[in-house]
Amino acid sequence: MHNATCPLCGPAPVGLLHEDAQLRIITVDDAQFPGYLRVIWRDHVSEMTDLSQANRDRLMLVVYRLEALQRDILQPDKINLASLGNQVPHLHWHLIPRWRGDPCFPDSIWATSQAHDQDRQTAWARQQPALLAQASVLQNKIRQEFSPPD
Amino acid sequence: MHNATCPLCGPAPVGLLHEDAQLRIITVDDAQFPGYLRVIWRDHVSEMTDLSQANRDRLMLVVYRLEALQRDILQPDKINLASLGNQVPHLHWHLIPRWRGDPCFPDSIWATSQAHDQDRQTAWARQQPALLAQASVLQNKIRQEFSPPD
Repeated sequence: MHNATCPLCGPAPVGLLHEDAQLRIITVDDAQFPGYLRVIWRDHVSEMTDLSQANRDRLMLVVYRLEALQRDILQPDKINLASLGNQVPHLHWHLIPRWRGDPCFPDSIWATSQAHDQDRQTAWARQQPALLAQASVLQNKIRQEFSPPD
Repeated sequence: MHNATCPLCGPAPVGLLHEDAQLRIITVDDAQFPGYLRVIWRDHVSEMTDLSQANRDRLMLVVYRLEALQRDILQPDKINLASLGNQVPHLHWHLIPRWRGDPCFPDSIWATSQAHDQDRQTAWARQQPALLAQASVLQNKIRQEFSPPD
């Protein structure tokens, strides 16, 4: 169930917070999007409907728990959930806390950044350090709550 | 559980394929993305974790069934699932069949279109009519399988 050329089938990536036989939880190191997480299914499948119902449920239970932690700890204006995989067709979820002042809001983070708006960028730069500190709290909480990586 | 100013709380929108007490299934009329569907939760909540576990399961069961139908009928290269709601913070899922030649692939559909690539646009225009015909098959199948709108 692994693919030799797939980057998501490889050894534990940077930012690994948890791994077990079924999935990995990764923190995405992007200062523009504090608290951004990915959940990567271990087997090389591309769609949710490639999984059994029990495995879909397990994966989404983790997604929901992480969303709840993101909301509790970071208090974002919105959570974005997405399973895209156009670039790497190996099932993974993006969990992205969003704020009204972030570089892309209200567009998706895959839209063109609005960071050229100088006032917005200045305001966001002021908000960022506190959010990045809370993102560290989130990461530690996940490491504690889920079993540590092998 | 409804919000007077929310467009997704309003009367049945264009493209309604199914509605029941919990959710609506909508076909998105965008010729660039044949078979694009949205599933909109009826109550005005913004996140998956605002729902009870039973309601999360019901919603995702419908998402998975629709994904399976999109794959069976349209045979896309990838399915994109996303719950964003930055513009309209009322819980809804985007289900978007993707093809390697579509105007945004391999980016998300919210990225800048690559339709300026003339060869790509010409090839996509050739592929589109057959895909749009299959999208009609998909819509009819959904209407039949789910109970018809009231």
